[in-house]
Amino acid sequence: MTVNRQWLLARRPTDKAVREDFEYRESEIPDASNLAPGHVLIRNQLFLHAPTMRNWMDPASNSFYPTVGIGNPMLATSAGVIVKSNNPRFAEGQRVTAITAWEDYTILNADVWPVRPVADELSLVEAQGPVGMNALTAYMGVVHVGRPKPGDLAVVSGAAGSTGSIAGQILKILGCRTIGIAGSQDKCDRLVSELGFDVAINYKTQDVEKTLREIAPEGVNFFFDNVGGDMLQAVVENIAKFATIVLCGQIAGYNDGVPVPGPRNMMRLIYGSVRAEGFLLGDFEEQIPEGTRQILEWIRAGKMVHREDVRSGFDSLPDTFSDLFTGSNDGTLMVVTDEEARTRP
Amino acid sequence: MTVNRQWLLARRPTDKAVREDFEYRESEIPDASNLAPGHVLIRNQLFLHAPTMRNWMDPASNSFYPTVGIGNPMLATSAGVIVKSNNPRFAEGQRVTAITAWEDYTILNADVWPVRPVADELSLVEAQGPVGMNALTAYMGVVHVGRPKPGDLAVVSGAAGSTGSIAGQILKILGCRTIGIAGSQDKCDRLVSELGFDVAINYKTQDVEKTLREIAPEGVNFFFDNVGGDMLQAVVENIAKFATIVLCGQIAGYNDGVPVPGPRNMMRLIYGSVRAEGFLLGDFEEQIPEGTRQILEWIRAGKMVHREDVRSGFDSLPDTFSDLFTGSNDGTLMVVTDEEARTRP
Repeated sequence: MTVNRQWLLARRPTDKAVREDFEYRESEIPDASNLAPGHVLIRNQLFLHAPTMRNWMDPASNSFYPTVGIGNPMLATSAGVIVKSNNPRFAEGQRVTAITAWEDYTILNADVWPVRPVADELSLVEAQGPVGMNALTAYMGVVHVGRPKPGDLAVVSGAAGSTGSIAGQILKILGCRTIGIAGSQDKCDRLVSELGFDVAINYKTQDVEKTLREIAPEGVNFFFDNVGGDMLQAVVENIAKFATIVLCGQIAGYNDGVPVPGPRNMMRLIYGSVRAEGFLLGDFEEQIPEGTRQILEWIRAGKMVHREDVRSGFDSLPDTFSDLFTGSNDGTLMVVTDEEARTRP
Repeated sequence: MTVNRQWLLARRPTDKAVREDFEYRESEIPDASNLAPGHVLIRNQLFLHAPTMRNWMDPASNSFYPTVGIGNPMLATSAGVIVKSNNPRFAEGQRVTAITAWEDYTILNADVWPVRPVADELSLVEAQGPVGMNALTAYMGVVHVGRPKPGDLAVVSGAAGSTGSIAGQILKILGCRTIGIAGSQDKCDRLVSELGFDVAINYKTQDVEKTLREIAPEGVNFFFDNVGGDMLQAVVENIAKFATIVLCGQIAGYNDGVPVPGPRNMMRLIYGSVRAEGFLLGDFEEQIPEGTRQILEWIRAGKMVHREDVRSGFDSLPDTFSDLFTGSNDGTLMVVTDEEARTRP
């Protein structure tokens, strides 16, 4: 490749992100002849689409990462290979996952931005799939933030999604009874048949608050929330004494630029002695090797399944990203821009 | 006494509780000749007024305790003496704090309802004052729920109140910098001069969110919230990474029958990796001796002050209760109906 293909943010979306929010550009490969200390040049080979990227497009979201400026390359969760390094932790040829941008080549300071080595036994698709950002987020949220007890009645919202499907399976492995909430009958069927949830609730056809009251009259002990808003409200109305709510995401609000409010009745959290706790994967940098090892072990033992939806082609990045918000992906959504990303080295 | 004076709930208040919401009645002293197992007859000598009692009057509050029925005696936090007992843990003559009712005599099951012995070295006023329900609530919320770190910037809402004033002093003892929020200049002056807060904010004349941003640009690490609503919102907008919010009360909503909603932007809690946790004093029954001992030690060492506002007379119960919501009390508000309650045995 002699050019650096890029997708720039052309305007701020007001609803779901669409193709027209981005602009294609070909620029020069960044000059890495004189890298500053700590910096690396990465050749991106795979891009993972995560709902939280929508927040990176909107200053009102108070995103943890800086908002993408208009005319700048879209920030992205990616995987690729180090082409040049002035960082002692990364050698040339080292494969990594990182937060880079929708472009072929990125220079960044690997001491500041998250760049993590990929183990030799994994393809880049595997590194961003079963042990990728979403799966590790589920692991940290359940195991280290929520710490459920065996026998807990656990609810997962966005349960068919990339993070929720892993969270639900981990909860099951840890001995919880699991209820998954998803937005179609197909997804609900899969929650039970493939992902081992005990019960699935279709929020598009069922009243979540009422259904929970019927099937879990003793209350919900553990809630892993990817959605927020009405889902959080419905579960809070059914929360058990001493329950835990893991605040993982608020996808309900990612597309309308309006922050998602908390539950309507905070007294529920007081009377229930409920703990609600937010987190980011980055809080658990030290636990990532443990989480990676544990998830791979569960998958190899047949206790966990992971489904990827891997597409191809740099051109398709904006269109595939919007698929994330229409729910037309089937598993963790990735775009491979170098077919090498699919295979182990 | 040959009659059992009572204040019954006459109607459900729609705003602040007033005298007309209650009805005075004289009935017979309850027959304790054949007490069921576990039950005791208590002669009430002192009533503590706590904001949460407003929730006991309103079914919409989802109160932890059952809502008081119309025509029933008003539920109350009290202190008194065991007159008759069919409970091996309580002898006749034992002084206790309890949740009883606005009446001279109460029969209850002491194995189900909270009844706690009062140590010999304390008057009943002291038992419901410096080491009473409100003070112990502050202790459990700070020490066992919140667990602040020395150096934390800690904010307390309702800081001049019975619980908030103790919470602020404990936070200071534990090495935090403390900011108190209260509703008058007098109260704010006292927060600093008497209770040792580093800074006080008057929410009636100052914009809490903006003021916090100016005086605490590094963010709030610890929030002890008695108020909820706008106060919670203002602090959440200034919350620091890895902060803790102790959900102690939501007095903002106790008078209007409308539940107080959570913060408007839950993503703040996610990006901030914030823990928000509710609790009730009753969760920490086992830690009450420790809390009592510790608070008395701090008071004796001159590290903590406690202010009581002790009134007299059974007749005054409804009027003094409404003083709680106009802020015209000066310290923990109690009504003594037997002057014995003021002295040690």
